[in-house]
Amino acid sequence: MIRELRPEDRAPWQRLYEGYQAFYGFHDRPAAFYDKAFARLVSGDARDFHGLVWDEGGRLLGLTHYVFHPNLWRDEGVCYLQDLFTAPEARGRGVARGLIEAVYAAADRAGVPAVYWLTAEDNYPGRMLYDRVAAKSPFIRYNRKL
Amino acid sequence: MIRELRPEDRAPWQRLYEGYQAFYGFHDRPAAFYDKAFARLVSGDARDFHGLVWDEGGRLLGLTHYVFHPNLWRDEGVCYLQDLFTAPEARGRGVARGLIEAVYAAADRAGVPAVYWLTAEDNYPGRMLYDRVAAKSPFIRYNRKL
Amino acid sequence: MIRELRPEDRAPWQRLYEGYQAFYGFHDRPAAFYDKAFARLVSGDARDFHGLVWDEGGRLLGLTHYVFHPNLWRDEGVCYLQDLFTAPEARGRGVARGLIEAVYAAADRAGVPAVYWLTAEDNYPGRMLYDRVAAKSPFIRYNRKL
Amino acid sequence: MIRELRPEDRAPWQRLYEGYQAFYGFHDRPAAFYDKAFARLVSGDARDFHGLVWDEGGRLLGLTHYVFHPNLWRDEGVCYLQDLFTAPEARGRGVARGLIEAVYAAADRAGVPAVYWLTAEDNYPGRMLYDRVAAKSPFIRYNRKL
Repeated sequence: MIRELRPEDRAPWQRLYEGYQAFYGFHDRPAAFYDKAFARLVSGDARDFHGLVWDEGGRLLGLTHYVFHPNLWRDEGVCYLQDLFTAPEARGRGVARGLIEAVYAAADRAGVPAVYWLTAEDNYPGRMLYDRVAAKSPFIRYNRKL
Repeated sequence: MIRELRPEDRAPWQRLYEGYQAFYGFHDRPAAFYDKAFARLVSGDARDFHGLVWDEGGRLLGLTHYVFHPNLWRDEGVCYLQDLFTAPEARGRGVARGLIEAVYAAADRAGVPAVYWLTAEDNYPGRMLYDRVAAKSPFIRYNRKL
Repeated sequence: MIRELRPEDRAPWQRLYEGYQAFYGFHDRPAAFYDKAFARLVSGDARDFHGLVWDEGGRLLGLTHYVFHPNLWRDEGVCYLQDLFTAPEARGRGVARGLIEAVYAAADRAGVPAVYWLTAEDNYPGRMLYDRVAAKSPFIRYNRKL
Repeated sequence: MIRELRPEDRAPWQRLYEGYQAFYGFHDRPAAFYDKAFARLVSGDARDFHGLVWDEGGRLLGLTHYVFHPNLWRDEGVCYLQDLFTAPEARGRGVARGLIEAVYAAADRAGVPAVYWLTAEDNYPGRMLYDRVAAKSPFIRYNRKL
């Protein structure tokens, strides 16, 4: 069952999000990183991030975080899916696909159907899924050097 | 001189923005597209888009539009530079570079130093500049099929 | 056991090579395509293609085809690994990796250690392996339009 | 005028080829590198590299080197255009385009019409031309780590 993230999910949510951060090489995020992210996700602020989780009989097996933000080309804005993670033991069961589709549904309800995300060019397992549920654009990201 | 976009820039701003839209293949945007975009840019709403222009003795030779939006990994959020355009007759004079650097400065003033943008993989003239003032990331964009 | 392709492998070799051609969308190669390719592979001509197969008790589970060709930057030339295929029922057992490493060994014996190949950017399963046994270059291929 | 490389081109050919090697970061190739490459180019061996130059009243303004090599999917083989260079003072005059088209013509005469080359993903000036005279493929190159 996919449902919204709730305050009582704090501990299992962090275990999942730590796995996601580790995938990107961040193994030692301070506790405050998780505290702040979680507080924002459950704040109820419509302009900040929202969280969805895959809850299987009380166990969280996947998460996704998304936000709506302005886009000058679209009045209603766009929906940015920033984070997506499936617990290693639940891979291959459609969790990630289900979460993406749940974001699509939430975006439709919000009247902001244009959902996008970014992924590393060599995230092969991710891209196998993304090529089925979305369209690769020719756009690549440049970052200011900080 | 780079300065903020002002209400009296309406007509020359549209000429530039039409050139930018045409670069991406949008030759027939309705008038309402430009009306709405301009209204948002000069609205003074800190959470919506901001515009900067290169003003040379009253002639506008370039524009850029950017917005601050939430990012779950960074408390202060990020700055998305969505649009950047130099009038064809002013190419090669550093207009685009100056505008990017002005966005960097505005982002610093706002306390949101992480600036990013997306560009087509085959935007060769753009990437020649971007490789000098920013860092290509390995991230590519996927879009929901609408 | 990895060994050289032999004349008596004709039938099982074709079954594998048909699978490989189908992967690239070629489902209806004429019989002559396979006849000619096989004849070249077993011709003994050192300047034409060589074939290696993974033979498991008489069953062929994988193949690779490679050729040595001149390169102006290297006196000894280079080794181009053109084809690589594992039977679907034998995936995940190291067949492809073993075949690549056997080409490396053959190339070393021939005094032509520089082995390369090309693969589709979205060949995710292949690239998972290739990133482990080789290095992605920044080079992309352009073809004359015929 | 585009013509075949000749033994008497040795000195001006090397000046051009040094410029090309420097573009790829090779500033100190030993003399033997140029000796051997030139000897191969003018050897008359049909299976080794061929050279074409843009000769403007006795001054060489550009060069290209190509070779025919076997390909298992095509009986007649393929033509690999390995090197292409225009003298800096002759840029923008169609030298590179002319040389590519001369390789196409030579390949047609040889009965090997399939011409290809590899280029760095961020060779923007090159790709501006290549996108006009050829088709970018989705193929990327992997190299054995030596």
